[in-house]
Amino acid sequence: MEFFKVLSLSEMKSLFLDLNFKFKVKQVKLSDSCFRVSAEDVVASHSWPLANRSTMDGYALQSKDTFGASETNPVYLKIKGDLKIDEHPDFELKSGECVGIVTGGLLPKGADSVLMLEYTERLGKTLEVKKSVHPQENIILVGEDFEQGEKILSHGTRINFKHIGALATLGIDKLKVYEKPNVGIISTGDELIDIDKMPCLGQVRDVNSYTLQALLAKEHLEATVYPLVKDDKKQLINRIELALSENDVVLLSGGSSVGTRDLTLEVLQEMGGAQVLFHGLALSPGKPTLLVKIGEKFVFGLPGQVTSVQIVFMVVVSPFLRILEGEKQVFKNNWSCKLKAILTRNIASVPGRFQLVRVRLEQKNDQYMATPILGKSGLIKPLFLADGLLPIADNLEGIKAGTLVEVWKF
Amino acid sequence: MEFFKVLSLSEMKSLFLDLNFKFKVKQVKLSDSCFRVSAEDVVASHSWPLANRSTMDGYALQSKDTFGASETNPVYLKIKGDLKIDEHPDFELKSGECVGIVTGGLLPKGADSVLMLEYTERLGKTLEVKKSVHPQENIILVGEDFEQGEKILSHGTRINFKHIGALATLGIDKLKVYEKPNVGIISTGDELIDIDKMPCLGQVRDVNSYTLQALLAKEHLEATVYPLVKDDKKQLINRIELALSENDVVLLSGGSSVGTRDLTLEVLQEMGGAQVLFHGLALSPGKPTLLVKIGEKFVFGLPGQVTSVQIVFMVVVSPFLRILEGEKQVFKNNWSCKLKAILTRNIASVPGRFQLVRVRLEQKNDQYMATPILGKSGLIKPLFLADGLLPIADNLEGIKAGTLVEVWKF
Repeated sequence: MEFFKVLSLSEMKSLFLDLNFKFKVKQVKLSDSCFRVSAEDVVASHSWPLANRSTMDGYALQSKDTFGASETNPVYLKIKGDLKIDEHPDFELKSGECVGIVTGGLLPKGADSVLMLEYTERLGKTLEVKKSVHPQENIILVGEDFEQGEKILSHGTRINFKHIGALATLGIDKLKVYEKPNVGIISTGDELIDIDKMPCLGQVRDVNSYTLQALLAKEHLEATVYPLVKDDKKQLINRIELALSENDVVLLSGGSSVGTRDLTLEVLQEMGGAQVLFHGLALSPGKPTLLVKIGEKFVFGLPGQVTSVQIVFMVVVSPFLRILEGEKQVFKNNWSCKLKAILTRNIASVPGRFQLVRVRLEQKNDQYMATPILGKSGLIKPLFLADGLLPIADNLEGIKAGTLVEVWKF
Repeated sequence: MEFFKVLSLSEMKSLFLDLNFKFKVKQVKLSDSCFRVSAEDVVASHSWPLANRSTMDGYALQSKDTFGASETNPVYLKIKGDLKIDEHPDFELKSGECVGIVTGGLLPKGADSVLMLEYTERLGKTLEVKKSVHPQENIILVGEDFEQGEKILSHGTRINFKHIGALATLGIDKLKVYEKPNVGIISTGDELIDIDKMPCLGQVRDVNSYTLQALLAKEHLEATVYPLVKDDKKQLINRIELALSENDVVLLSGGSSVGTRDLTLEVLQEMGGAQVLFHGLALSPGKPTLLVKIGEKFVFGLPGQVTSVQIVFMVVVSPFLRILEGEKQVFKNNWSCKLKAILTRNIASVPGRFQLVRVRLEQKNDQYMATPILGKSGLIKPLFLADGLLPIADNLEGIKAGTLVEVWKF
């Protein structure tokens, strides 16, 4: 009998986090860094803004001059002129004076606030002030956005549009990111044919190469898809060796039949330096998932069933690849959209395995309702119709209708 | 005084939906279709599966032969052999007989169910059956996933990994999608400098070109970023004309100062065939947003303030571009992740405008809690720290702490 090394999901997580990868780092332009993982901490080399700036179009002035000002009891100030947006005022504003300023403009010395245009009337060189302002009203103070030395981006963070905005503000035009893993996809099985062919009875089209490629694209990863491999030991070895020479990770899918599964395992175990990290996960669907380390590279043996492959990708392969790209907090942030929803019917589960139930989401009375989509194992339809997955922890025998559950939305 | 055509958000939506775009369609390979918008309804040209298939490794048999079978009271059947995964069995199974089958394998005529391997013992040519099965157990029936003529993909749908799986299953290797709009980005303002330069007092780096590019990349759109333009009428006209000749939509950002704003409007209005679709939205932040149609093309005048631009992009520009790409139900699906959360403090709002409040999300007692991030208008920090936006409808004066609200997570 073959040796099964079945891991729980928490054992799998520990295993992933303990693997020592040799990360490769490269420098990219800021405009090429979005969705990549930062390989450095980035701190602000200077404060922002550089000086006190107006957040409104109006007049810079001394707030104490406006105390008590109102529509019926206006105050009058002397207009010293108008500042341009990029002007660095070299004079000091005195009590009783004001100066026109635009949004983003720098306040002159002496001014401590800005009065909005709409509460003023310009009478030649005199300003009629119809509202009081308090000190610092409508201005941003030097360093109020970012202080010098403040951390803007942490090592291991996946860069998003908000980081891009902060980095651009502070003049970070290049930064170090991790190289993305190269991923190869191999589908294997005597029953598989290319998707442009009409299957004979007993044949199925190679769906997995396409869905895996799409799921990788969602993670901003490109994949090399290799031609279909028959259940032939020599052909399979050659193809895996080729894919390993060209990639960091190979996703081998297929093996829905006992024959293919056995062959896959046999081939992988016989490859030089192969180390089976796990063979089976306490996960449903996805139990027959296999991970083998060969030298510094990795081969996933994925289930053949087309919807199991997609779920295993999302729950197992995706976090693995993200760790391989240097991302931290991968399991905390394992899903971009986790909703709370009320379960509409009881679901049973088998303790000892982590289950992922396909659910539909609907809104009702300001809450989301999650309805399990039942269907035989092996059907494509339930995943096709689902809006997300409902995880059931491995210590539960099920969840009762009416429970507030977490749904991982696609 | 200039003429302001301020629209409510619902007026803006109607306007977007009523614009007549000249959509361009092209055919792409399935592997290039993910995240694109389908330009056709796709129906299944044949049923799937093509024949009854096993979902388990085990034995195909007649379920009535197993009635009453148990561990202590097994039933014995004659083994007719073993079917390969891609084998099309040409015999008819009779009562008292069974045949080995693998997951995905075709059932022979006469067999109506599959018994899992683990409930059997093989005694030479005889199978010991230790469990009963019911009719259709562990099999998928012909057409159970997809029936011939069934719609797999609707016209106007953005294609995701689930569609890819169904389309590959049914052999759709090419499909018609809409062309993506070409987008040009122009930043304008005398105070702007490139991000690799150190600003003098009064200058700011050009953040908007970078954040807009990142936000477009999130929508799978590439942009052409043009060099910075000063507040110079001729330069601005030339640059807009160039960008319009190369793109379908131009995002003109900047104009945080009165001067730039006026100049932008003046320039756009003077361009041949220009039609101002709106000038101002009842939206906060984002009021000064402007949309002009020039011939068959569009120019957005976006606010200059760097966080307003990002929010306006998400709430206004993104749905516009998605409609321009032929996507339907854009306003229903305007955000990929809408959570329910409990508001932790009162927020005031001004009726008559749709407000978007930056919030942080935390989990507490199985619920999300949304806390508004307060901060002066013009600061970058509140958006930088936010996890999402809380929309406040334009008929509300605010929302009370403890209310279950919707949060649009980034």
